[in-house]
Amino acid sequence: MSETYDAFVGRVRELYTLYSISELLEWDQETQMPPKAAEDRGRQAALLAGLAHDRLTSAELGSLLDALEAEDFSDDHAAGTNVREVRRAFDRAVKLPRALVAEIARTSSVAKANWAQARADSDFARFAPHLQRMLDLKRQVADCVGWDGEPYDALMDEYEPGARSAEVQKVFEQVKAELVPLVAELRDAPRQPDESIRSRSCPVEQQAAFGRRIMEAMGFDFEAGRMDSSTHPFCAGVSPRDVRLTTRYDEHYLPMALFGLMHETGHALYEQGLDAAHAFTPMAQAVSLGIHESQSRLWENQVGRSRAFWEYYFPELQATFPSMADVTLDDWYFAINTVRPSLIRVEADEVTYGLHIMLRFDLERKMLRGELAVADVPEAWNEGMRQLLGLTPPDEAQGCLQDIHWAMGIIGYFPTYALGNLYAAQFFAAARAALPDLDDQLRRGTLLPLREWLREHIHRHGQRYRAGELVEKVTGRPLAPEPFVAYLREKFRPLYGLS
Amino acid sequence: MSETYDAFVGRVRELYTLYSISELLEWDQETQMPPKAAEDRGRQAALLAGLAHDRLTSAELGSLLDALEAEDFSDDHAAGTNVREVRRAFDRAVKLPRALVAEIARTSSVAKANWAQARADSDFARFAPHLQRMLDLKRQVADCVGWDGEPYDALMDEYEPGARSAEVQKVFEQVKAELVPLVAELRDAPRQPDESIRSRSCPVEQQAAFGRRIMEAMGFDFEAGRMDSSTHPFCAGVSPRDVRLTTRYDEHYLPMALFGLMHETGHALYEQGLDAAHAFTPMAQAVSLGIHESQSRLWENQVGRSRAFWEYYFPELQATFPSMADVTLDDWYFAINTVRPSLIRVEADEVTYGLHIMLRFDLERKMLRGELAVADVPEAWNEGMRQLLGLTPPDEAQGCLQDIHWAMGIIGYFPTYALGNLYAAQFFAAARAALPDLDDQLRRGTLLPLREWLREHIHRHGQRYRAGELVEKVTGRPLAPEPFVAYLREKFRPLYGLS
Repeated sequence: MSETYDAFVGRVRELYTLYSISELLEWDQETQMPPKAAEDRGRQAALLAGLAHDRLTSAELGSLLDALEAEDFSDDHAAGTNVREVRRAFDRAVKLPRALVAEIARTSSVAKANWAQARADSDFARFAPHLQRMLDLKRQVADCVGWDGEPYDALMDEYEPGARSAEVQKVFEQVKAELVPLVAELRDAPRQPDESIRSRSCPVEQQAAFGRRIMEAMGFDFEAGRMDSSTHPFCAGVSPRDVRLTTRYDEHYLPMALFGLMHETGHALYEQGLDAAHAFTPMAQAVSLGIHESQSRLWENQVGRSRAFWEYYFPELQATFPSMADVTLDDWYFAINTVRPSLIRVEADEVTYGLHIMLRFDLERKMLRGELAVADVPEAWNEGMRQLLGLTPPDEAQGCLQDIHWAMGIIGYFPTYALGNLYAAQFFAAARAALPDLDDQLRRGTLLPLREWLREHIHRHGQRYRAGELVEKVTGRPLAPEPFVAYLREKFRPLYGLS
Repeated sequence: MSETYDAFVGRVRELYTLYSISELLEWDQETQMPPKAAEDRGRQAALLAGLAHDRLTSAELGSLLDALEAEDFSDDHAAGTNVREVRRAFDRAVKLPRALVAEIARTSSVAKANWAQARADSDFARFAPHLQRMLDLKRQVADCVGWDGEPYDALMDEYEPGARSAEVQKVFEQVKAELVPLVAELRDAPRQPDESIRSRSCPVEQQAAFGRRIMEAMGFDFEAGRMDSSTHPFCAGVSPRDVRLTTRYDEHYLPMALFGLMHETGHALYEQGLDAAHAFTPMAQAVSLGIHESQSRLWENQVGRSRAFWEYYFPELQATFPSMADVTLDDWYFAINTVRPSLIRVEADEVTYGLHIMLRFDLERKMLRGELAVADVPEAWNEGMRQLLGLTPPDEAQGCLQDIHWAMGIIGYFPTYALGNLYAAQFFAAARAALPDLDDQLRRGTLLPLREWLREHIHRHGQRYRAGELVEKVTGRPLAPEPFVAYLREKFRPLYGLS
């Protein structure tokens, strides 16, 4: 390895170590920090962010990148990956003027407060000028970063490097064409679940213990991570050896903590599966938000909402929660797979969820292209909800004001949620083909072979492959709508008594 | 305020913000961090320490200090304090060659491992060469920093700025002259406590709840701090609005958690009492380790081991712990004030504790002056123990190998423990004079007036005054042995039935 590369990777490790400290501070803020420390934490976080930005955009790093790009890393994929991905981050960062970044932070701060009030009052007009301002700024970001398809690409690229709107749209359209009729079919189906099962009383302490047992079965390493509670569940990957997830509990709604934990553990297994030898470099970072989400959704839905999984775990669940004693496995399985069009994205089931995302994806692109005026967003939202889900939001709070993302300036992020579902189905189909015994393993509560397969084929590679390449390498084909649609049809039609 | 000062304080705030992040990481390491993260945490901590060192020793900060020293801050004590104290830290840091600092870190790492093994085997010879190396390095530190009295001053100055060995020794000698006979008197006294009371079973959960009630009564602000458990209790002052203390529990030894919590809460009240408006500058930092220790010891001993305090809290303690139902207040009060010469410093009572410290202070100074060879330390230690406490350690593990400080290169730190006890007695006597109702307040469980008095006279000043000045300002006289000796005599002689 060249001396130049050694100098480069030393700097990169420092940069990513700063990021890891920031990650820890965020985890602390959500789980441990006393409330009066908020202002001081803001100062700490801003200092770290500034230090990291200075390092990322430093002339020294730029010179090292220039020098390294003259070297041949074809027989050292780790070095090649690190140079390529740091170059990507460096280019993005140096293209953004400091004043623009600062203005977005200021606008976001004001916009969040106004969004919160607007949502409380269900008054989009209050939020509209802030959304307009944010759109103008994000459009400037897109222009600074550069794009050749459409400006939205430049924003989405931050979360899903290499993704193109037009390609994503093509896949989304195919999914939409299948999901809209499927949702209607299920809504009118002869069999319907007894949802009330999900609301039976389950003491929080036992929920935590039961969740922990499932995390252990999934292979979460408690020596290299921890589990806490917080208002908004999340997973913080401080390093592959320090992965911290959270959940929240409702005594009268077991699925929240249960599937929340399996979801976050899916994220956590990805983080723990990154190669610790490459810690604090891109080689030990996740590929994209979409790939990350695929890991959480695969464990939450393909595994956690499968009948096979519950063949093993339902008796244990019943032993843990006496209120479940008279429930049958089939009734439980049906209840946790309730499909019902609803107004709020974060409460949506796995069939309707993607439709919520596709609506946002469509509106965001149109706003950014100037084809949809901010003032017309509520109407466009409601029209989309009617077309996709057959519902009309009774007010703006339950409509276009429900998510905080736009106020935060997070535009181009929503599609990664739906991509995660698509990748998950495609990966799981590949895993099933590779592990013919997979369903039987799930039936026996044996989850580690699946984790090993994911680790081997996805986690350990870090950012070696971009999302598109990775999907093709792992599943033998590019991102496609069919595995996801087939998974949903094959699971839900029989469940709802449809032939 | 001058523009130069604004630029200066901006830099200082960043420096102290880095320190505060380091403090948070240390707290996390002891209370939350998963074990496999240790190596990554080391990398994070080293990066932050390096960034802070670079900022503290930067030429820019030096120029700002030079420029500011031409300004007149006589009517702005905060600015004057910040310039003076940053200058002090800057000078100390720039005088130490990087290579020396690095060599001490390396030596410490090796010495700690050898010390642990030496203690396990009770084999001082194994540790001796590492202690010798550390002494040589610390002597170099003293010479780099500079001293005019004796080299030990330069080391002690790191922990107790402005203290002089010769003056400290004078006070220690007077205390020693009183304590040695007092310890003997108490040992042979007619009345002796029933220590077994302290070992009655008290469930850990109730210990935590009871401790929390006392912390609340002391005025600890749980909105600006938290309480957790850890192997080694400590208090981390991340900022005045983020103060985190820990304790440890033994079901069969209530005093450990109880007095440990009052001790750490004393530290915590100091940190919470610093002026948040000056957060991240010397004006919101503690004066010295000795002053810090005075706050913990005052609450632990002058309050927590007083009869007045237990007149209010003992009935509550009995209601919390049924195993205490048949114990009388007087028996409890006597038991928690057991005095007995013992081998181990950290287990010593408040009468004998100082003697352990004075032994170490004496040996450290002699070693540093070259008057005591490392090979002769075990004999000197044992001789000191005989003279001061009438005990001979049966082995080196329970003798000169018991503390980790020397292996860590922490030399000059021990005296601050004893200074803390002296300051505590002197401050408490002043508080009692200022608050004639103080004992009655304690009898009613009313602890806030004392906290307010400490906050007003000590905490809120941050580093405005050096320890010596502060003591004189608060108590009307310099550090003196009499208040401490009088406190011990007046409390313990009657308790042990001596007239």
